[in-house]
Amino acid sequence: MRYELYYWPGIQGRGEFVRLALEEAGAEYRDVAREERGEAILMEYLRAKQAKQRPFAPPFLKAGRLVIGQTTNILFFLGQREGLAPKSEAGRLWAHQLQLTIADLVAEVHDGHHPVSSGLTYEDQKREAAKRTEALKEERLPKYLSYFARVLAENGSGWLVGRSLTYADLSLFQVVAGLRYAFPRRMTRLERQSKPLVSLHDRVSARPRIAAYLASPRRLPFSPTGIFRHYAELDS
Amino acid sequence: MRYELYYWPGIQGRGEFVRLALEEAGAEYRDVAREERGEAILMEYLRAKQAKQRPFAPPFLKAGRLVIGQTTNILFFLGQREGLAPKSEAGRLWAHQLQLTIADLVAEVHDGHHPVSSGLTYEDQKREAAKRTEALKEERLPKYLSYFARVLAENGSGWLVGRSLTYADLSLFQVVAGLRYAFPRRMTRLERQSKPLVSLHDRVSARPRIAAYLASPRRLPFSPTGIFRHYAELDS
Repeated sequence: MRYELYYWPGIQGRGEFVRLALEEAGAEYRDVAREERGEAILMEYLRAKQAKQRPFAPPFLKAGRLVIGQTTNILFFLGQREGLAPKSEAGRLWAHQLQLTIADLVAEVHDGHHPVSSGLTYEDQKREAAKRTEALKEERLPKYLSYFARVLAENGSGWLVGRSLTYADLSLFQVVAGLRYAFPRRMTRLERQSKPLVSLHDRVSARPRIAAYLASPRRLPFSPTGIFRHYAELDS
Repeated sequence: MRYELYYWPGIQGRGEFVRLALEEAGAEYRDVAREERGEAILMEYLRAKQAKQRPFAPPFLKAGRLVIGQTTNILFFLGQREGLAPKSEAGRLWAHQLQLTIADLVAEVHDGHHPVSSGLTYEDQKREAAKRTEALKEERLPKYLSYFARVLAENGSGWLVGRSLTYADLSLFQVVAGLRYAFPRRMTRLERQSKPLVSLHDRVSARPRIAAYLASPRRLPFSPTGIFRHYAELDS
């Protein structure tokens, strides 16, 4: 199966959660907008006069005749196909539940710098961003990170679910990496209370395929146009 | 199978999407915190020293030995178990994709009145709420509603997926009902461009089990403590 990933070409964004899964699986895939056709191909899909399984927004993944939208849905699908999820129903639902909680966290991080509207720049909503990011750092991030640290500690294998890596582990790695980029000062403090997350981050980045991916030009850098953004005035 | 739903007892909230699915399926269920034990039972779960499949937040559903958290995950599970989702893989993924997009919409509606922090009251963030709600009404709601109207029109059966009702239809009914409560003036205008959504709303509310549910005391009213809130100053 050769997959086609459709996502904005210039940023990691939500597409990165899918890329990490494809890379860890050693799957053959094209990053279509980035490798060949630019944003135009995304707009073609989103504005198509007729579409089956019309996506609301990137990322979406083509797998043969399937077109799958929504990051967590793509991961649910890839998890089963590519051996990145448990085989039991209970295990699959649990991995998916964790992934949905990661998605909630990611949306809250995004809204930290865009609390009013995605249609405005950060500069247009700086005052509101300062307030929301304060709540994010003081209430939400500690709550999320301690939750995942606890799940890791309770499971005891070093992974979130069962005894093997799942796509949720890859996504949590990305969250830790992203938060370190966005809030380096705050994360130094938060990590002290979230040791199992740091270990998970290190275990994932040491996986041979992930290590190779991170060192390759396929891995875009974090940047001030993605979901995880560093603005010095928001990090304290 | 007798299900147990765990959700905040006083509001429709995200639990309502699960209730609608259980009601349409004619499933036997207990609404545990509401019928018997109040919020205390939720806190017991969330703060348990040890927990398998620990939920991050309500709602969660007990189904035999399974504990399933995250609204869309619960619906994915119930969809298969209770015949509220297509049988094919493609159909199941498509229904789930739509549900995830509905969940995104619902989160944006919530953040309309709580753009800074869920830990603060609406009154504490009124100024920011006015700005975010403006963007919600001008950009986001039209985008979401026209997307779902288009999906309905393209599918052609009156339902979102295939030829039968799925849990996504029930959730979209709830969104239309909620938006009518929150933004009665604005929705009058938006509905003119979203006729298929109005038909869907009417078809769902005419389902015998849903009609019986809506007329029963089990259906809590919309209220200014839920996700969909009416503040006159935000509706225009």
